[in-house]
Amino acid sequence: MADDAASAPPTAQLAAASISSPPSSDLEPPTSRTRIRAILDAGDAMAGERVVVGGWVKTGRQQGKGEFAFLEVNDGSCQGNLQVMVEKDVHPLASLTHTGTSVLVEGVLKKPPAEAKQRIELKVERVIELGEVDAAAYPLPKTKITLETLRDFVHLRARTNTIGAVARIRHQLAYATHSFFDENGFLYIHTPIITTSDCEGAGEMFQVTALFSQAEKVEKELKENPAPSEADVEAAKLVVKEKGDAVAQLKAAKASKQEITAAVSVLTKAKENVLRVEERSKLKPGLPLKGDGKIAFENDFFKRQAFLTVSGQLQVETYACALSNVYTFGPTFRAENSHTSRHLAEFWMVEPEIAFANLQDDMNCAERYVQYLCKWLLKHCREDMEFMVKHVDKTAIERLELVSSTPFERISYTKAVEILEGVDKKFENKVEWGIDLASEHERYLTEVIFRRPVIVYNYPKGIKAFYMRLNDDQKTVAAMDVLVPKVGELIGGSQREERLDILKQRILDADLPLEPYEWYLDLRRFGSVKHSGFGLGFERMILFATGLENIRDVIPFPRYPGRADL
Amino acid sequence: MADDAASAPPTAQLAAASISSPPSSDLEPPTSRTRIRAILDAGDAMAGERVVVGGWVKTGRQQGKGEFAFLEVNDGSCQGNLQVMVEKDVHPLASLTHTGTSVLVEGVLKKPPAEAKQRIELKVERVIELGEVDAAAYPLPKTKITLETLRDFVHLRARTNTIGAVARIRHQLAYATHSFFDENGFLYIHTPIITTSDCEGAGEMFQVTALFSQAEKVEKELKENPAPSEADVEAAKLVVKEKGDAVAQLKAAKASKQEITAAVSVLTKAKENVLRVEERSKLKPGLPLKGDGKIAFENDFFKRQAFLTVSGQLQVETYACALSNVYTFGPTFRAENSHTSRHLAEFWMVEPEIAFANLQDDMNCAERYVQYLCKWLLKHCREDMEFMVKHVDKTAIERLELVSSTPFERISYTKAVEILEGVDKKFENKVEWGIDLASEHERYLTEVIFRRPVIVYNYPKGIKAFYMRLNDDQKTVAAMDVLVPKVGELIGGSQREERLDILKQRILDADLPLEPYEWYLDLRRFGSVKHSGFGLGFERMILFATGLENIRDVIPFPRYPGRADL
Repeated sequence: MADDAASAPPTAQLAAASISSPPSSDLEPPTSRTRIRAILDAGDAMAGERVVVGGWVKTGRQQGKGEFAFLEVNDGSCQGNLQVMVEKDVHPLASLTHTGTSVLVEGVLKKPPAEAKQRIELKVERVIELGEVDAAAYPLPKTKITLETLRDFVHLRARTNTIGAVARIRHQLAYATHSFFDENGFLYIHTPIITTSDCEGAGEMFQVTALFSQAEKVEKELKENPAPSEADVEAAKLVVKEKGDAVAQLKAAKASKQEITAAVSVLTKAKENVLRVEERSKLKPGLPLKGDGKIAFENDFFKRQAFLTVSGQLQVETYACALSNVYTFGPTFRAENSHTSRHLAEFWMVEPEIAFANLQDDMNCAERYVQYLCKWLLKHCREDMEFMVKHVDKTAIERLELVSSTPFERISYTKAVEILEGVDKKFENKVEWGIDLASEHERYLTEVIFRRPVIVYNYPKGIKAFYMRLNDDQKTVAAMDVLVPKVGELIGGSQREERLDILKQRILDADLPLEPYEWYLDLRRFGSVKHSGFGLGFERMILFATGLENIRDVIPFPRYPGRADL
Repeated sequence: MADDAASAPPTAQLAAASISSPPSSDLEPPTSRTRIRAILDAGDAMAGERVVVGGWVKTGRQQGKGEFAFLEVNDGSCQGNLQVMVEKDVHPLASLTHTGTSVLVEGVLKKPPAEAKQRIELKVERVIELGEVDAAAYPLPKTKITLETLRDFVHLRARTNTIGAVARIRHQLAYATHSFFDENGFLYIHTPIITTSDCEGAGEMFQVTALFSQAEKVEKELKENPAPSEADVEAAKLVVKEKGDAVAQLKAAKASKQEITAAVSVLTKAKENVLRVEERSKLKPGLPLKGDGKIAFENDFFKRQAFLTVSGQLQVETYACALSNVYTFGPTFRAENSHTSRHLAEFWMVEPEIAFANLQDDMNCAERYVQYLCKWLLKHCREDMEFMVKHVDKTAIERLELVSSTPFERISYTKAVEILEGVDKKFENKVEWGIDLASEHERYLTEVIFRRPVIVYNYPKGIKAFYMRLNDDQKTVAAMDVLVPKVGELIGGSQREERLDILKQRILDADLPLEPYEWYLDLRRFGSVKHSGFGLGFERMILFATGLENIRDVIPFPRYPGRADL
């Protein structure tokens, strides 16, 4: 029946209908599950409703002399747990109560007794699915466990309250980022991860290569089938000579066309064989080397050295210089041997870039964006922020409120240095005009002096990147950093040098070659525009919001020297 | 004055106010620019308004015997250009009319004469900024240029209509993706780019390394300061002996405590020096090698081999098995030597993962997601989709309408093979139960047989990955592919094997070691749940939407063998 229909001419639209399967009867019916957040948000309004709920037991206890059990179940949709009550006739209770057990249960929502904390609880009528836990083997106890210890269990730590809350906050900050830029007419551009450019002209970069696996393949092949020797090559060449002679003889003997064609075909194959043998005779174990003994990166996948990006800025500028308002949001990398609580080898950056925009436009955008993020969290992450206040940093919500409602102070670098030089405070790093401000200086400005976010602008050109626009004083560039309480520098940005000649000179002054930047210079050759942008370290923003101390706890899978779990 | 205030005790809240700078007077005032989209959307409603507009000249021409010029200006906010009229008294016209010229102009919006195409045009009163173009040198002519040629100018190609439209469509698809998952309670999880796991147990992966740059550093250091010889080490050891003897002599001579302490300190330094010299004497140029001559990856940044991810699925499962509904959207990599129009070395994938979800839940999610994307484009990208219909693929909008409004056909793999075996059509690849469906088969099913999206499910276990759930028939796994007209497979997904013993066996059957998957097995040991997910190739979706043929044209910076420009 199906065959008949399918062999009908492909033009017959009706054919499709006649061979349609009935709704997939060979498949399990879909699960209709209610998220716990919806239940807790509704409160007692959902009492009496029958629901299916799935989640993991945070804590469980038997009560009433083993007649029933209470489970605190969480499904990640919110910080709060649903209280779930199971009677022993419904399911053996001992298998349900261990922390980490997963349950998919059906039951009816009820208002608990008036004295209970909960506004709603689930009385279970059926345990649909159960994923047990051997409590003795489970690495996450019900009791408190440090964030540091949890880093050895990145595959399980999302089941803890703190890391769960961080995941929701991180999600909201990412979503808020896309909302903010979409609302303001910015296009999201995916800048490349693998790059042959170096944004900073410094910065330690990871290299991306296929040479090791290529070498491994060659080695494996040579093991199975050793490389031909010189004698093998000579032998193959001898065959060509013989077959050539044979063709010549046949021709001389005026043999039939068929015979000659056959002999020529044999000769061709012999010649091809020589090429193959010669090619294989060059196979050597190890990495491909050039004549001078250096590694031949022209044999690598991209025919040159390629790296993991340290910033999408230079590339996103090509889109800004075409479509005006753009941003990139993606992973960036540093191969720096940093073991601090503020550095990762892989982290995410948000980098907007705006054409027809000067440094003030850039500051305005940065200020609005940070305030938008703070307001968004206050609105969409109240419960998780309250968790942070209770367990991590009691000023976390205050800080968001302060930043979202206070205009950012704006001072020049020169002024900032004057202020820092004038205060009665010993810094570890001496302050003088020309230094790069250290974290202690930045935090002092924002936390002590101004008690609000501060934008410092017009930095000495010597400490900033070549692409930042030279100011008329010839001493400073149109750079700006946004400093916030708790983390110090949250954003670094600048107006870009749009004047071709000055940009060229700045590249040369930075001891960089011009050639790799020709494409970047082209943006100034052809319809150049004033443009500006900045970068926000996404994990820094999460540290700022949550008050957590270690950057390894605010990214799902932290990468740092010696560690790339999973 | 500033100094006084700043040196006041840090508790004085008022201090901040008194040293506040006036609004940054040393900075250029911000630019107030109106986006062209807002003007064109308003049509003649904005006539009479004074605006500043910035953008690039698409085409320009002098008219009225050189009295004035018309410029078609685009700023990326939409496909349409704003017609801009400049009189020669306002600015010399010749510098304005070349394609690619950038202009920031101020003027008044006017209704053009009734016979004009435009509903609104800008009469310029002031050219604020101008970025000229040397027309002879500019690589992008006003005339048509092929997409293939444009790939040699990735830094400029966003200025063309087609690549500009793709950028807006890509932005909208990314934003729609985040909106869809947020609306449905999914959390966005950033899975790692650098990984020590291999999702497929196959797949050619790029390796990430810092060894080359480390070796370079060592070589440079050795050049400046050659490694100590054995004799140098011996000499350093001799010094230790001498200094040791000196200490012994002082002690024997009952010298003063001060003298002995001084001599011990000299001895300690000599000992430290031996360690340093020995350490440096081991420095060798080239990559670090182990005893067997193999490269010592334990000396690399992560103390082991690390790779670029081919999929975030396995890692995102750790979050699904904690927070229920999650997704990842990020770059993924394949070091495959593919030169086709459908493969990239770096591409973006959307991978949701749902706990307490079986294969039907997975299909429902995939169908709703794809339909959501199609509806979103029809709503938010009308103009760019119409451009695609006019210049690229006349069925592009029809296809979106079809897919967004038609329930997806769902058939088992076995049924699909039956249908394909029954049709009167010669395929290049023979159809029989057990094969992986080729693109020609997939497209025939969706384009000819069903003429709508088709979900094929329950594939032979032999052709699918180890983590897909084994069906009761022991022959198939709970996998599903979504096939759509124009591109064939758009989505691949599955229910994951949640049963510990079966999963272990499947890993072993795939000839993979268990040890690297212990963390993955832990998810089944501790509170295991049925869960499912899928992956959508983001660039495939853009090909499907736009009708473009080559995947290199739908990602801003394409990476493929031999090419990683910028």
